[in-house]
Amino acid sequence: MSQCALKIDKLPSVRRLPAYLHLLRELSGKGEQFVSSPYLAEKMHIEAILVRKDLELARINGTPRVGYCIADLIKGIEDFLGWGETLDAFLVGVGQLGASILGNRELMNFGLKIVAAFDVNPRKVGATVHGVPVFDSARLEELLSRLQVSIAILCVPAAEAQQVTDVLVASGVKGIWNFTSENLAVPEDVITQKEDLASGLAVLSVKLTRNKPPTH
Amino acid sequence: MSQCALKIDKLPSVRRLPAYLHLLRELSGKGEQFVSSPYLAEKMHIEAILVRKDLELARINGTPRVGYCIADLIKGIEDFLGWGETLDAFLVGVGQLGASILGNRELMNFGLKIVAAFDVNPRKVGATVHGVPVFDSARLEELLSRLQVSIAILCVPAAEAQQVTDVLVASGVKGIWNFTSENLAVPEDVITQKEDLASGLAVLSVKLTRNKPPTH
Repeated sequence: MSQCALKIDKLPSVRRLPAYLHLLRELSGKGEQFVSSPYLAEKMHIEAILVRKDLELARINGTPRVGYCIADLIKGIEDFLGWGETLDAFLVGVGQLGASILGNRELMNFGLKIVAAFDVNPRKVGATVHGVPVFDSARLEELLSRLQVSIAILCVPAAEAQQVTDVLVASGVKGIWNFTSENLAVPEDVITQKEDLASGLAVLSVKLTRNKPPTH
Repeated sequence: MSQCALKIDKLPSVRRLPAYLHLLRELSGKGEQFVSSPYLAEKMHIEAILVRKDLELARINGTPRVGYCIADLIKGIEDFLGWGETLDAFLVGVGQLGASILGNRELMNFGLKIVAAFDVNPRKVGATVHGVPVFDSARLEELLSRLQVSIAILCVPAAEAQQVTDVLVASGVKGIWNFTSENLAVPEDVITQKEDLASGLAVLSVKLTRNKPPTH
């Protein structure tokens, strides 16, 4: 039931928090100290009232005519997301998608540290991809029990997804970031977050359809 | 203002539609004719009431004790998403992420057809990646005006994102699927959909934090 602790209607706000963090760090890097909700709204392409609602999650209130203190807001968002500390993770499946995640600097900026990658392909085992060593998938269980990471990033082919998941769960992984098309079966105390590229395509398609001038 | 035509509170439902479509096609492939909302709820890991709300978008109602007609539901979702016909697209930036999108079969199943890819790297130009020809980015404008695609998938480095976007917009592209970390500036009649990997990480982190047993 713990997955219900965060109301599902807050998830769109949670999804936007990294984009705020990116913007706020940029502003902070330029020496800015305060920011207004209309400014954030313009940059985020959403309405100011929604910005204020999103930022309630970080438990930071703006001051009229001054705006939000940028440093407080960054700290509030990081605390809410649990991104103050580094998140250690394993990545399984070093195909093109897996490799692109290993090279994603934005994720590193948000505290994700992929400490090891795994693949079944002997040509990839022993290599280093974007600074991350690639091990044989057969060693997943052994290294999981030794290194105690709590997040695994799953980029294997769909047909292998559940089998790898079973190994991950048996080894104590508590969060699986699922980049496969499979709906994974996991025990109640394990969190899965499915990334579905088609979701973004759906939103784009719907907006495009609504945006078309009538054809007659 | 056309971007507001679809209420923002419907977007989480829209994002889930491809996953329904995936499930429904699987069931249909197994010869099933009807499906219940509790079954879909279990597979989607959400509540049945939310399933019924999501499927209202497809304008299909279930029948008590019988459930939803799978064929009608598939058609209703495809119509809502505008996925009955093929969506032609260009992809710009054939790095690891771009290449993984070119190879994503799930997106093809949903009607996305990437007809050409573009890169500035002379070693990639002339190659074929997952069946898609790679052209020199210098030819983007010329090929856009010739082929009339309405969607561009943007996978270039962040520093080049706005410049490429300006070319796309000037050539009449109406939808940009943005995989860069840049917030793109576009005219009002152009739709952008930003994919931010960090959004998924945020949701996973928050759920994991809420899921932890109290430390004392």
